[in-house]
Amino acid sequence: MKKMHDPVIDETIYFDVLENGLPVYIMPKVGFKQKYAAFATNYGSIDNRFRVAGEKNIVTVPNGIAHFLEHKMFEDEDVNVFDKFAYYGANVNAYTTYTTTSYFFDTCDNFAECLELLLDFVQYLYLTDETVEKEKGIIAQEILMYEDDPDWMAYLNLLKALFHVHPVREDIAGTIESISQINRELILKCYNIFYHPSNMILFVVGDLDPEWVFELVYENQIKKDYTIQPFIERFYPNEPKTIFKKRVESSMPVSRPIYKLGFKEQKTGEDGNLLLKKELATNMLLEILVGKGSELYQKLYASGLIDDSFSISYSGERDHGMTVLGGQTSDPERLHAALIEGIQAKMGQIKEEELERVRKRLIGDYITIFDSLSSIVQNFIAYHFRNMNLFHELKILNEITLDYLEERFEEHFNLANHAVSIIYPL
Amino acid sequence: MKKMHDPVIDETIYFDVLENGLPVYIMPKVGFKQKYAAFATNYGSIDNRFRVAGEKNIVTVPNGIAHFLEHKMFEDEDVNVFDKFAYYGANVNAYTTYTTTSYFFDTCDNFAECLELLLDFVQYLYLTDETVEKEKGIIAQEILMYEDDPDWMAYLNLLKALFHVHPVREDIAGTIESISQINRELILKCYNIFYHPSNMILFVVGDLDPEWVFELVYENQIKKDYTIQPFIERFYPNEPKTIFKKRVESSMPVSRPIYKLGFKEQKTGEDGNLLLKKELATNMLLEILVGKGSELYQKLYASGLIDDSFSISYSGERDHGMTVLGGQTSDPERLHAALIEGIQAKMGQIKEEELERVRKRLIGDYITIFDSLSSIVQNFIAYHFRNMNLFHELKILNEITLDYLEERFEEHFNLANHAVSIIYPL
Repeated sequence: MKKMHDPVIDETIYFDVLENGLPVYIMPKVGFKQKYAAFATNYGSIDNRFRVAGEKNIVTVPNGIAHFLEHKMFEDEDVNVFDKFAYYGANVNAYTTYTTTSYFFDTCDNFAECLELLLDFVQYLYLTDETVEKEKGIIAQEILMYEDDPDWMAYLNLLKALFHVHPVREDIAGTIESISQINRELILKCYNIFYHPSNMILFVVGDLDPEWVFELVYENQIKKDYTIQPFIERFYPNEPKTIFKKRVESSMPVSRPIYKLGFKEQKTGEDGNLLLKKELATNMLLEILVGKGSELYQKLYASGLIDDSFSISYSGERDHGMTVLGGQTSDPERLHAALIEGIQAKMGQIKEEELERVRKRLIGDYITIFDSLSSIVQNFIAYHFRNMNLFHELKILNEITLDYLEERFEEHFNLANHAVSIIYPL
Repeated sequence: MKKMHDPVIDETIYFDVLENGLPVYIMPKVGFKQKYAAFATNYGSIDNRFRVAGEKNIVTVPNGIAHFLEHKMFEDEDVNVFDKFAYYGANVNAYTTYTTTSYFFDTCDNFAECLELLLDFVQYLYLTDETVEKEKGIIAQEILMYEDDPDWMAYLNLLKALFHVHPVREDIAGTIESISQINRELILKCYNIFYHPSNMILFVVGDLDPEWVFELVYENQIKKDYTIQPFIERFYPNEPKTIFKKRVESSMPVSRPIYKLGFKEQKTGEDGNLLLKKELATNMLLEILVGKGSELYQKLYASGLIDDSFSISYSGERDHGMTVLGGQTSDPERLHAALIEGIQAKMGQIKEEELERVRKRLIGDYITIFDSLSSIVQNFIAYHFRNMNLFHELKILNEITLDYLEERFEEHFNLANHAVSIIYPL
C-alpha cells in the first residue's frame, strides 16, 4: 500500500489499486466510533451515450437509467439489502448525481461483515423483467413527488434555460416517458460497463487498521471474476457556449415567489488541479459577492428581498459547470436587478483584504471536513472522479491571487452567461 | 475539577461549578480540528411568568421576549458580534427553544480569544429604546416568513389543538401584537434574572487541555461582579390533561396536503433519569410503530400515503410533552385512518425481537453522537437543563423492558390524547 500524508492537517490516506482495477483508499481516524465505507462508480445521469473501446457501436440509453439501476441494486432474491445491514446495526444508503452513483454504510460494530455485504450487493445484480416493470411505478411516484417541490422545479427550469442540449437539463430520475423505455437488457448493459471495478472507487474511513481492511477487500475481490475492461468512451452532445433561454417563468402553489439566477460555465474540458483551482476561486468569488458576510447579502436581507432560504453554489464538472443562487423572495424583479447590479459593481473592485478573509474562511471549511466521516467520504469521492485530490486543496487555496480571481470573475460572471428561473404563486 | 467517565464509549467529561454558580463542562476530543463552546441559559419562550425567591410579585412578560433578547445580544456599540468572531476565523450563532437559549461558536484557531468573546458578549447587554424599537421590525419580518412555511404552520396548529393554555401553544418568536408590548425595561428584567451564571451552563469540546480551559473561564469570570442569585420560581398555567381540540384544518398555497398527528403527554413533573427513561422508551415505541424499518412505514410509503417528508419526534419536558408525526400526503383522511389503526393494532403486540432491534439501533445512535462535536454540545445541554446526564443513556436504554414499553404504550398512545392538524391546498 502507498500512503499520502497532509502535514498541515496531520491526516494520512493509504491506497492501492487491485488487480481487477479497483482503487482502494483507507483513511484511519483514531477515536471515532463510527466507520464509513463507500463504494462508488463514475457513472451518473448524464452518462447516456457511451462505447467501450474495441466495440463498434455507440450505445444510447434512456434518461434516468443510472438512478433506476441504483434502486434495483437494493433488491435481492431473499432478504432486502436494508434488512441485511440492519441486522448488523448498520445503516446503508445510496445516491445518484449527474456524474456519480455511490453506495455507502456506516456502523459502529461488525465492520468486516458490513464491508463484505457492501462489496457483494453492489457486485451482484438481481433483475427480472417483472422487478423492472414493478420499479417503474415506484420511480414514477418519486418523479411526481419531486415535481411538487417548487424549489427543485425552479432549479430544473434554470438548467433547462442555461443548457441547449446537455443531459444536465434532464432530471436525474428521468421522466415517466423515458423510464417507460427502460428494460432489463439496457440496465444489464449499463451495469456491466459502469460497475466494473476499474470504473469505481472504494473509500473506507474510521478507527481501523489499513492493512487489515485492505486484506478484507483483497480476499473478497480475488474470489470474483473480472477481466480488465478497456476504457469507456462517453459522448456528450455538442453544447453551445450560449444560453438557451434568458428566462423561464412558471406558476405553482407557493405563497412567495422563488427566484434562481444561474451563470453557465464557458471553459470546459479541465480536470485535476486546474479544475480544483477554478472551483475554489469561484466559491471565493461567490462568498465575496453575496455570501452571508458580504454587504450585498446584508442589504438584501434587511430589505426583505432574501431570507434564510437564499443559497449559493458552484458546480464544476469536466464537461459542464454552473453557478446557481437564489431562494424565496418578496419581489423577483427587484431582487434580480439588485443582484445583477451588485455583481457588476464589484467587478475589478475586489480588495486584497476581502480575498484574505474568504481564503481564511475556506481554509477553515476545508479543515472542518476532517471532523466528519461522511463529509470526508463524500468530498473525497467527488474529487476523485474529477481527477482531483482532496489533500491538494490547501496548496491550491493558497495559490489563488487577486489577479486570478479578477480573471475568473470576468470569465464566469459575464452577463452574457446568465439565465433566470422564477416560480410565481398561482 | 471533577471528572465523569463512560467506560463503554471511553469518553471523559471534566466539570466544576464556579463561585458565581456557573457550571463548566469540558470534554476533550483528541484528533478533532474544530473546537466548540456553548454558553446556554435555562430560559426559553415558555418562561413568561416567574419570581425570584424573596421578591413579592410574580412578573408576567409578553410572548417572544426570550427570542427577542437573543437577537439583541448580538448588537454592540461598535462592531457587531458576528464580525468579531469572523475576525478570528470562527462562526458564532444562537437559537431559542421553548426552554433554552444557547449561544455557541466553532473555530479551528484562536480558541482562547473566541471563548473570551463568547463569555463577554453574552454577559453584556447593549440596549437602548431605539435599538429595541428597530428590532421589532426585523422580528416582525421573521414571524411573517415563518407564517409562510406550511410545515411550520401545521406544527403550530397542532400544538394549539393539543394544549388549552400552556405557552408551548405560542410561537417561540411571539406574535406581532405580543412583541409590540416589549420594551427595554422588560428585556433587562429577564436578562438580569435568567442570564445569571447560576442559571446557565458553559460546555466546551475539542482537542483541548481541560485545566487550561477551566483557568481561562475562571480568569474571565472572576473579573465580573455577580452575587449569588436565589432560586427562580417559574409559573406555568394549569394545563388540563385533555386535548383542547381534536382537529384543526387550514388552507395554504401547497400542492399536496400536510398532515400532522400529535399525542399529548399525560404524566408531567418528572426530570432526571425518570424523564430520560420515558423519553427513550417513547422513541423506541415510535421506531417500532412507524419508523423506517417498520411494516406500517413500508406499507404507507408503497401506497403513496407518505413520502420522504414523513417524520416522527417526541419531546419530553418537565411540565409538558408531545409526540408529533406526519408529513405531506396524497390523502390525509386515509393516512389518519391507517396510522390510528396501525398504532392500535400494535398495542400489546410488541415482540421481544422488535424491542432488541430498536434497542440496538438507539445504542448505535447514542454512540454516534460522540463523533460530532455539535451533536455532543446540543445533546448535553438539552439533557443538563432537564437534570439528565448524557452518560446515563446506555444504562437506561438497557433497563427498558417489554413490560415498561407496553405500559408506556398504553399511557402515551391512548386515542383520547390525540389531535390532528391538516393543511389543505387552496
